[in-house]
Amino acid sequence: MADGRYRIPRDGQNDYSVEQARTRREFLKEHTGAELTQTGEYTIDPGQLPGNIENFIGIVQMPVGVAGPLEINGEHANGRFYVPLATTEGTLVASYSRGMRVINECGGVKTTVVEQFMQRAPAFIFDDAREARDFGQWLEDHFTEVKAAAEETTSIGKLIHLEQWSVSKTRYVRFNYTTGDAAGQNMVGKATLAACEWIKANYPEKCEYLLSGNMDTDKKHSHLNMLHSRGKRVIAEVTLKCDVMKKLMKVDTWMMARSSVLANMGAMLAGASYNGPHSANGIASLFIATGQDEANVVESHAGLLSHELQPNGDLYLSVTLPSLIVATYGGGTGLPTQRECLELLGCYGKGKANKLAEIVAATVLAGDISLACAVITGHWVSSHDKFGRNK
Amino acid sequence: MADGRYRIPRDGQNDYSVEQARTRREFLKEHTGAELTQTGEYTIDPGQLPGNIENFIGIVQMPVGVAGPLEINGEHANGRFYVPLATTEGTLVASYSRGMRVINECGGVKTTVVEQFMQRAPAFIFDDAREARDFGQWLEDHFTEVKAAAEETTSIGKLIHLEQWSVSKTRYVRFNYTTGDAAGQNMVGKATLAACEWIKANYPEKCEYLLSGNMDTDKKHSHLNMLHSRGKRVIAEVTLKCDVMKKLMKVDTWMMARSSVLANMGAMLAGASYNGPHSANGIASLFIATGQDEANVVESHAGLLSHELQPNGDLYLSVTLPSLIVATYGGGTGLPTQRECLELLGCYGKGKANKLAEIVAATVLAGDISLACAVITGHWVSSHDKFGRNK
Amino acid sequence: MADGRYRIPRDGQNDYSVEQARTRREFLKEHTGAELTQTGEYTIDPGQLPGNIENFIGIVQMPVGVAGPLEINGEHANGRFYVPLATTEGTLVASYSRGMRVINECGGVKTTVVEQFMQRAPAFIFDDAREARDFGQWLEDHFTEVKAAAEETTSIGKLIHLEQWSVSKTRYVRFNYTTGDAAGQNMVGKATLAACEWIKANYPEKCEYLLSGNMDTDKKHSHLNMLHSRGKRVIAEVTLKCDVMKKLMKVDTWMMARSSVLANMGAMLAGASYNGPHSANGIASLFIATGQDEANVVESHAGLLSHELQPNGDLYLSVTLPSLIVATYGGGTGLPTQRECLELLGCYGKGKANKLAEIVAATVLAGDISLACAVITGHWVSSHDKFGRNK
Amino acid sequence: MADGRYRIPRDGQNDYSVEQARTRREFLKEHTGAELTQTGEYTIDPGQLPGNIENFIGIVQMPVGVAGPLEINGEHANGRFYVPLATTEGTLVASYSRGMRVINECGGVKTTVVEQFMQRAPAFIFDDAREARDFGQWLEDHFTEVKAAAEETTSIGKLIHLEQWSVSKTRYVRFNYTTGDAAGQNMVGKATLAACEWIKANYPEKCEYLLSGNMDTDKKHSHLNMLHSRGKRVIAEVTLKCDVMKKLMKVDTWMMARSSVLANMGAMLAGASYNGPHSANGIASLFIATGQDEANVVESHAGLLSHELQPNGDLYLSVTLPSLIVATYGGGTGLPTQRECLELLGCYGKGKANKLAEIVAATVLAGDISLACAVITGHWVSSHDKFGRNK
Repeated sequence: MADGRYRIPRDGQNDYSVEQARTRREFLKEHTGAELTQTGEYTIDPGQLPGNIENFIGIVQMPVGVAGPLEINGEHANGRFYVPLATTEGTLVASYSRGMRVINECGGVKTTVVEQFMQRAPAFIFDDAREARDFGQWLEDHFTEVKAAAEETTSIGKLIHLEQWSVSKTRYVRFNYTTGDAAGQNMVGKATLAACEWIKANYPEKCEYLLSGNMDTDKKHSHLNMLHSRGKRVIAEVTLKCDVMKKLMKVDTWMMARSSVLANMGAMLAGASYNGPHSANGIASLFIATGQDEANVVESHAGLLSHELQPNGDLYLSVTLPSLIVATYGGGTGLPTQRECLELLGCYGKGKANKLAEIVAATVLAGDISLACAVITGHWVSSHDKFGRNK
Repeated sequence: MADGRYRIPRDGQNDYSVEQARTRREFLKEHTGAELTQTGEYTIDPGQLPGNIENFIGIVQMPVGVAGPLEINGEHANGRFYVPLATTEGTLVASYSRGMRVINECGGVKTTVVEQFMQRAPAFIFDDAREARDFGQWLEDHFTEVKAAAEETTSIGKLIHLEQWSVSKTRYVRFNYTTGDAAGQNMVGKATLAACEWIKANYPEKCEYLLSGNMDTDKKHSHLNMLHSRGKRVIAEVTLKCDVMKKLMKVDTWMMARSSVLANMGAMLAGASYNGPHSANGIASLFIATGQDEANVVESHAGLLSHELQPNGDLYLSVTLPSLIVATYGGGTGLPTQRECLELLGCYGKGKANKLAEIVAATVLAGDISLACAVITGHWVSSHDKFGRNK
Repeated sequence: MADGRYRIPRDGQNDYSVEQARTRREFLKEHTGAELTQTGEYTIDPGQLPGNIENFIGIVQMPVGVAGPLEINGEHANGRFYVPLATTEGTLVASYSRGMRVINECGGVKTTVVEQFMQRAPAFIFDDAREARDFGQWLEDHFTEVKAAAEETTSIGKLIHLEQWSVSKTRYVRFNYTTGDAAGQNMVGKATLAACEWIKANYPEKCEYLLSGNMDTDKKHSHLNMLHSRGKRVIAEVTLKCDVMKKLMKVDTWMMARSSVLANMGAMLAGASYNGPHSANGIASLFIATGQDEANVVESHAGLLSHELQPNGDLYLSVTLPSLIVATYGGGTGLPTQRECLELLGCYGKGKANKLAEIVAATVLAGDISLACAVITGHWVSSHDKFGRNK
Repeated sequence: MADGRYRIPRDGQNDYSVEQARTRREFLKEHTGAELTQTGEYTIDPGQLPGNIENFIGIVQMPVGVAGPLEINGEHANGRFYVPLATTEGTLVASYSRGMRVINECGGVKTTVVEQFMQRAPAFIFDDAREARDFGQWLEDHFTEVKAAAEETTSIGKLIHLEQWSVSKTRYVRFNYTTGDAAGQNMVGKATLAACEWIKANYPEKCEYLLSGNMDTDKKHSHLNMLHSRGKRVIAEVTLKCDVMKKLMKVDTWMMARSSVLANMGAMLAGASYNGPHSANGIASLFIATGQDEANVVESHAGLLSHELQPNGDLYLSVTLPSLIVATYGGGTGLPTQRECLELLGCYGKGKANKLAEIVAATVLAGDISLACAVITGHWVSSHDKFGRNK
C-alpha cells in the first residue's frame, strides 16, 4: 500500500499550474478510470490558489442564482440588495426571494451586529485542581502581558478577554479576539500559540498545555457558541404587517404566532440548534457564493427565531444568529468568482465584514418567513376556519 | 420599493439559458455596478439546471484538490480511494492526506453503515392532551394504511416506522423512511403530505396538522438526530499502531488517549455536537465536490469520536456519524463536475449511497487523526517527558 | 486510617434497633463531638427500615405544609385535593396554594398520563462496529425470548420494547419496562441482568456487556429522557380566563403570553431542562412528603411549559413532564409519615401511581402560574401601560 | 369550588403553633378522611418555622444513616468525616460507605472549591435590537453604580460581575453575586430588584424589565450553569491505586478506564447532565439531612467525572460539580435535626459553606467509585479474561 506509484503527483516547482493539475487528473484517470474533463475546465489561475487548496485538480461549478431585491436598514448594510446564492437545491432561491418580497412590503429588515469574537482555546494541564485554579488567577493577573505576547503575531487581531473553566486538573482557557474583516481562525491560532509560549516561559510553576482543548469550538456547533459568540452575533428584525401577510402569503399572523410556539416546543424537545425553519440553507449558499469557509456553516446556523404578536395583529419577528462567521478578506474571498459575488453585495475587502453579516442575517429571516408560511398555508388550512381570529 | 424595475428579470420561455443569465448579470450590473464577468464563465448547460436553482446568473468556481489514496475496507467501499475535496481553506487537503497515510500504514479503515432514515415530522394539534394521546394510539393501529398512503407517492421511498411524542395538546409524529440513493427530503415531504391527508380524511375525530413541527429536524443539528439517524449512521474504525504513530506522527498513543479524554471533557462542557477535532471540514468539502446539499453539513457533522487504548499500546479509534446525509442520485449529483467527482470515487448513480457514506466517514477519521496529532506534537511536547510511558 | 476504631458500629443481629441507632450516635459523639439528640427523637420503628437505609442513626424532621385545595379533572385523580409539601423554603407552600386557587377559579386542571416506562440500559461490547450492528439485529429477532427471560424475575415488570444505538463497536440497548405502581429501578435492574445473561448464553458469538452504559440515564437529567420517558409522561392543562387573571393576579394574559415567549428564548439560550419557572420546587417537596426517591427529582423536573393565547384573550397553559418518576408502593412509600401523606391524597398502595402522577403535574402547573404572575406584576408593570391590550 | 369551607384553616395570630397544626390536620381528616397521626408527632417547635413553611401540619420523618469515615484533604474540610445521609433508598448508605473505604485506602480525597456565584437574571426589553445592545454598553459603563444599588439591600451579598446576552430586542443580564454561607437565592433576588429599579430610574431611555428571563436558571438544570457556576464549583480528586482496587473492589483499573470512556460516549449520546454513575443520590440525601433546599439537587447534580490512567496502572479520578448550591446558614439549616447533622460535619453556621461543599463533592466521588465498580465486577467479568492487562 505504501507503494509510491499510488502517490498523487506533486512537485515543488510548479505545483499550482494548469499542467500540474492536468498531470494529476491523468494520474487519477489511470488509477481510477474516471474522466475529469469538466472539472478541468476553469478560468481561474492556479497560481492564485496557494493558501486555498493543495493537490489542485480543477474546479466544481456551483450554480449561482440571485434572490432579491431585499431592503435592509442596517448600520452597515443599507439599501436594496441582490443576494447571490450558490446551491444545487431547487426552490431555494425562489423561496428566499418570496420572503424578501414580504419583508420589502413591510418596510424592510432592520439589522444589528451586537458583538464579534474569534477564539482559540488551549487546555492547561496541572497535577491537581488547586494548581489549575491558582494558574487561572495568575493568568487573570497577567492579562496585559499575555495580550501583548498574543498581539505581537498580528497587526489586526486584538485579544479582548479570556474565559476560563476548571474541570478536573485542567484549566480550559478561551482566548477571545477581534479579527477585523477576516474570519480569523488561523490568526488567532498563531496568536494564542505565542501567548501560550509566553505563559509557559513565565509561569513560575510547571505548565503544560494542549493548543486546543475542544472549547474553541472550531468547526462544530456547540451550546457554548450559542452563548458566547464565535464570529458575529447578528440580529435581523421585521414587523410583519397583518394585511401584507394576508395579501401576499394568505397567512393569518395569529396562526403564525401559534405555530411559532409549537415550533419552539418541537425545537426544545428535539434539542435543536436552531428553532426556526431553515437557517442553514441561506447561510450555506451565501457562504459558497462569497468564498466563506463552508465548514463554518455548522457554527453559523445556530440561533433563535423569536416572535411577538402585537395587539394590533402585526407580528414582530426576529432572528438572532450568535455565531455567524463571515469574512470579506482572506481565505476564499479573493478568488475571482467569489470576489465578484462579494462585490455584487458591495462587500469585498476591508471594512465590510459587518455589512456582510447583516446581509446574511436578513437573508435568513427572509427564508424563514417564506418557509413558515408555506408550511402553514399548505397544510393547516382547515384550522384557519376554526381558530382564525378575523372570521 | 415594490417598483417593478427592481425586479430580477425572469421569463418563462428561456429562463434557463445562457442569454437569460447574461440578461440578469447585466441587470445586476446596472443596479449595483458589479461586474460578474468571471461568474459568467461556465461550461455547464443552463438547460440542465431546472430543479437545481432559480434566477441563474452563472457559477462560482470552487477549487478541488484530491487527498489520498485512502485504503478502505468497507462493505460497500473497498480498496484505494482518491478523495476530491472542494474547499478554499489552505492545508485542509494536505492534512486529510496525512491522516490517510497513517491509516494506510495501519492496515486501512473499516467502515460500516448501521442504519439509514429520512424524515418528515408533522405536528397534529388537538383540543387537549387526551385527544392527542388517543390519536397516537389510533395512528399506531393504522400504520399499514398510513404506509400505503405515503408510498403511493413514490416508487423508492419506504415508510419504515413512526416515532411519536406528546407535548401539550400536540402529537409530534416523525415519519421514518428509507429513500434509496437519494437524500430524500422532497420525497418524504411529498409522501408524508399524502399520509397526513389520508389520516385527516380517515381519523374519526377532527384532526388538524402542520406538515412540520420542527421535529424533523431538517437543516439543523439536533440531539434528536444524534439519537435517531437522519441520513445514514456510519462508523469508521482503525487501530493505530503504536510504532506507526511514533514513526509517522511523532505521537505517543498513551498521550493521544489522554488528550482524547481531555477533549471529551471539553466537548461535554461546551455542549458540542461533535467531540473530535473537525468533522465538518471533510464533510463540507466532500459535499460540495460531489453535489450534495451543502446545508446538510449541519446535520451530518454531529458525531462521536471514541478511543480505546489497547494493553499493547495500540490505540483503537472510531468515528460514529449518526446523521450523515448523502446522495448519489438526484439533487446536484448529476451536474457535470459534481458527477465527475462522484465517478472518481466510483459513486455515481443508483446503489452507491452507502459506498459514499463509508468514504465520507473514513475521510473524517483521517482528518481527525491528522489534526489531533498536530495539536499534540506542536504543543504538548514537554509533557511527553513527564508523562511518557516509554522513557 | 484503616484503623478499626473509626468504623461505624454495625452488628448483624440488631442492626435496625433503637439501641443500635443510639450506639451509633454515641460513637459519632465520641468521634466528632456532635450531639444528635433531636435526630434521635422519632416514633418510627427501626425494624421497618431494612430496605430503606443502612447505618441508621435517627431521623430528620422535614416540616410539612399543605397547599390547596386543587380541583383536578384527571383520569385517575378526580376532585379536590389537599397537597402535602415537605420543605424548608418559605413561601413555597403559599405560592403553590395561590396558583391552585387560580386554577380552581378557571374550572380546574385537566391531567393526562400519556405513557410510562422504566429502563435499564446495558452496553454490549464487540470487536468492531459490524459485529455490534449484527448483534442488534439478532436481538430484535429474539425479543420474545429476551422478554421471557427478563420477566421471569418479576411478577409485575413487563418488558415492552428495546431501543438500540450503535456507537463505535458498542451496542447500547435500553430495555423499557412497565413497573406497575413501583418506581421500578431495582425491578428492571434485576430483570435486565437476567435478560443479559440469557443473551450471553444464547448469542452464537462472543458477547460481553456492562449492565449500564449510561443510557438509562438513572439519577441524572438527560435529553434522552426528555424524548423517551423514564417514569411517566404526564400533562396538565388549564385555560386561564382573562378576567380571572385580571381579578386574582392583576395580570394581563397577553403580557403573560409575551413573557412566555421571552422565557422560552431564555431557556433555549441557557440550555435549560425546563422552560417554565420552577417545576423542581413542587416536585421535590411532594417527593419528600410522599416517600419518593428524592434523587429522582433530577429526572422528573425536566419538561415543557406551553401556552396558546386564544382569540378571546384566554390563555391556554400546559405543562408536560416527560419523565416523572413516582411510586405508591415500595421504597419509602410505606414509612408511617410518608404513607399518611400519600393517604391524604388517596394515593397509597397499588393502582395509585397514575393518580399521584396527575397530582404532581397539576401541582407543578399551579406553582408555575403563581410564580410567572409574581414576576410579571412585580416588575413589568410599566410595560403594561405601553403594550397592554386593554388600555 | 370557591366555597370557603374548603379553605385550609389559617389565622394570623397563632399560625405557627401546635394547636393550629392540629386544627389543620383535623380539617384535612374531615375533608379527606386521612389520619395524619404520625405526621403530627414531632419535637420541633412550630414557632421556629416562619420563613421555612406555610400551612404547617406536622413533619415527615426522613431516616438518616451515616456513611464513613471519609478522609478528606481539603482546604476547608480536613480530616475524617462521618457523613449523614437522609434517604429511603436501601443500599445507598452502604454503597457510599464502600466507596469511602476505597478512597481512604488510597490516601483520601483532595477537594478544591474553585469559584462561587449566585444569580438573578432579569430581562430588559426594548423596541429593537440596537436599543438592547446600546443598553448593554451603558450597563457595563455603570457597573459601579449598579453594584452599589444592589449591595444596599444586603450586608453579605456582593455583586461581582454581570453577564449579558442579546436575543432579539431583549437584553438578558445575569447578575453574579457571592453570598457568604447562605445559598442566597432570596438575597440576590432582592439585590437585583434594587439594581433594576436603579437602572430603570437612571437609564436615559425607556427601559422595561422582567425580574427573571429564565437565564438564572433557578431550580432547573441548564447548560449555562454547567459553564458558569450557580453555587460553588467544586472538584474532588483521588488516585485509585491499582492494587487497592484489585484487593478491595476486584476491579482492574485498565478496565475501569475503558468503561469510563464507554460511559462518556453514553452520556454524550444521551445528552446527560452528568457523565458519572449517580451524583444525585449522594447530593439529595446530604441535602435533606443538612437542611438544604432540596429542589437545588437539580442544579447541583450536574457535572463531569474525569479519569486518567497512569502509566503505572493507577487511575486518577475526579469529579467536578460546577453548580453545587449549599448553605450552612439560613433556610432550613437552623432546624434542630438539620442543624445537628451539619454539626456532625462541623459545618453549622458562618464560614462553613466551602467546607460543606468539599464534603459533598468528596461524597459524590465515593459513591461513583462504588457504583462503577459494582457495574464492572458484576457484569463484565468475562471480558476481564480477554482484555485484562495483567494476565
